[in-house]
Formats: sequence, structure tokens, C-alpha cells
Amino acid sequence: MRVGYLSDESDHTDLRESLQDLGHTVNAVSESAEITDCELVIIAVDEARLPEYVEALALHARRGQIFVHTALSYGAQILDPLETTGAVVAALAPLAGEIWVIDALDELGSTIIELLAAELGLRVFPVPDSRRQRLLAGLSFARFAEAARNDAASMLLEALGNEKAACDIARGVVSAGALPGVDKLSAQHAAMADPGLARSFVDLARRTAEQTGADDIELWAIGQDRGS
Amino acid sequence: MRVGYLSDESDHTDLRESLQDLGHTVNAVSESAEITDCELVIIAVDEARLPEYVEALALHARRGQIFVHTALSYGAQILDPLETTGAVVAALAPLAGEIWVIDALDELGSTIIELLAAELGLRVFPVPDSRRQRLLAGLSFARFAEAARNDAASMLLEALGNEKAACDIARGVVSAGALPGVDKLSAQHAAMADPGLARSFVDLARRTAEQTGADDIELWAIGQDRGS
Repeated sequence: MRVGYLSDESDHTDLRESLQDLGHTVNAVSESAEITDCELVIIAVDEARLPEYVEALALHARRGQIFVHTALSYGAQILDPLETTGAVVAALAPLAGEIWVIDALDELGSTIIELLAAELGLRVFPVPDSRRQRLLAGLSFARFAEAARNDAASMLLEALGNEKAACDIARGVVSAGALPGVDKLSAQHAAMADPGLARSFVDLARRTAEQTGADDIELWAIGQDRGS
Repeated sequence: MRVGYLSDESDHTDLRESLQDLGHTVNAVSESAEITDCELVIIAVDEARLPEYVEALALHARRGQIFVHTALSYGAQILDPLETTGAVVAALAPLAGEIWVIDALDELGSTIIELLAAELGLRVFPVPDSRRQRLLAGLSFARFAEAARNDAASMLLEALGNEKAACDIARGVVSAGALPGVDKLSAQHAAMADPGLARSFVDLARRTAEQTGADDIELWAIGQDRGS
């Protein structure tokens, strides 16, 4: 395929190289008018500027061309101005590691983006706009869980002197077991010198207690929160 | 070895079976006086009652006997009354999965507990009392990190419809990447219906921001906290 690749410094995908490696002819696009000969146009620009790029490209799009954007915050709908010219549109955005999410407006778009993803060897999941905010929040939460893991791992490392063991426990590779009682949590909390760490300890105790139905721990955490 | 095994319903170790499987003669101890013939006595009782059991056992202990307790909250020091009778004392407590921690009061105690752990095939780390509170707090934090992982995983599962992918991201098997900006976090937070989840989102955003030096996110989180 002749591929036009419109990107800016926000593009952290390696789609350009991957497409080239697969034998496609990939040309960088700097002006919208340059897409005329392209069968496929990849739009890998900063999310905030995606709508304006779409408007500009729509002036030169034609029936049968394929347009794919890589912005995780948007589904295929954002490409509507291109779709009304008769082009096929889809979203193909990197989520985490080798996991990507896709979206399309119709069956043809779905088929094409799945074929392209398969050719690229990507692990993709369709995510409609109705689930997009959930996805983004879940991804943020996964990033936050890393902070909790970091705190757990650094405390365990200090205590055990062994990084592998500390990380295995912090990551849940081996189970940390049941929650201790309120008296023990309270003593652990009282011994913490770092205020940020101590606050996070209480916050997470509260959420853990909510999840497990440990009412006494939840009440303790709420009390700590109010007192601080 | 002739092993006396003093335990109650709080004993979740499988030391008794493991010692038997290794060919030792293991007898349950119900009265302190029954330890007279034992070369090794395992004390696997509720932590809160450990001191009183130690006092009672000390009346019957003799030089050369080995006493080992399994309470994670204590080091070997709690066995002092036994040690003064000339017995060798040590702590061998399960931490997480196959990871155990050990403590002793002298070189002989260290050697013996390491030999016993090696015979049992346990992965052990020495933890002195000076690091015990850190260890316990780190273990609690690891348990809490599980709560954050659970929230991330359930959101991602709803969005992706694939448990393996959701768990891989939530557990950090694949990286969730960089933190989004404040505007995106704020939008994600605003869309959350579950108040406990939304509160934890802000709490964890704040801790993550502290760790990464993202001042704008930290300020946003503090503002949310005050406003709620």
C-alpha cells in the first residue's frame, strides 16, 4: 500500500517503521494536499490538534481512501468529516505495551482495521465511545496502582534487603495474605515518618476495607482522615 | 528430631506436615510439661497469647532444647524467658507465599534456624526487630496495592471485555505509560459514579504525583480532597 504518514513529536508509536518493514511505501505527509495518491493515511498527531488536522485533510480526501488515527482519547467518530467524503475511517490507538484499541464506524471500517492490526501483529480490542472514558480512567488507575506498588516495594526492600522478594510481594506475584487488624494497622501507621506515605497508607486502607467489607478498618481510616 | 508442636486455630503454616514429611517425630503439645522429651518445640499460637505461652513453657525448658515461634509480629526476643533456661531460640514466620522471615538472638540460633529452613525448603530472610515495623507496614501496603489493582482491573475489564489484557495492565505486566494531564484526569474523575472509587482515584493521583513530581496533578488532587 501507499501510506501517507502525518505525525508530530507526540507520536510514540512505531507504526511508521512497522508499515515500512511490512513492505508498504510510507511517505511523511506535511501538507494535506500530499495525501492524494495515498491509499492509507495514518494520522498520528497530538490529540488536541486532531480535529483541525481532520478538517484540513477532508478537503483532499476521496472515496475509497482509508484514514486511521492513533489518539487514545477518541474513537473513529472524530474522523466524521473524512467519512462523509466517502473515505473509510478507523481508530487504532496504543493502550499499554503491545495492547492496542480499535474503533470504526461501520463494518467495512472494522474489517479493514482488524486486517491492518493483524498484519502489524498487534493485540487489539474494540472499544466503542461508550466505554472510552472507563478505559482511560482504568488506565490512569493502573498507573496509580504502580505508585502503591512502589511504596510497598520500597518498604519491603528496606526490611528484607532483597529486591526480588520485595517486588514479588508488592506486585502480588506472591499473596500478601489477609488484612491485619485495626490495632496493627494503627501501630504501623503511627511508626511512619513520611507524611505522604502515611496519608497514602490510610487512604488505601480505607479503599481496601471498602472492597473487603472490613468495617472497623474503614472507620479507623475515616477517623484518621478527619483527624489529620 | 523429636518435635513438640504447640499450636492453636490461628496456625496457618504447614510446618507440622512438612516436619513429618521430612521424617521427624512430631507430637502435638497441649500441656507445657509435655515438652520435656522434645529436641525442638514449635510455638505456632495466636500472637496475642504468645507471651503467656512462653512463660508457661519456660517452667519446663532445659538447656539444649530449641524453641521456634512463628509469629510475624515478633522477633526472637519474645522468647527471652526460654533463652535464659539455656535453650536456643529463634523466630521463623511466614511472610507471603513461600517467603519467610527469620530472627535469632545469637550465632547458634541463626545457624540452627537457617539449617531448619533449608531442610524445609523455605526461602527465608533475616529481619531484625529494628526492621520489623517496616516489614509489617510494607506487607500491609502490598495488600493495599492489591485493592488499587482490583479497581484498575475491573475498570479495564469493563472497557476491554478481556480479563487477561485488563489484568496485565492493572498488574503492570505491561506498562500503563505516563500519567495523563490534569484536564484528562479531571474528566475521568468527573465521570465516575462510584464515590469510593472516585475518592480513591484522587487519593492515588496525589500519591502518584508526589512520587513523580507532577505538581499540577498534586495540586488538583489536594483541591478535590478539600472540596469533597
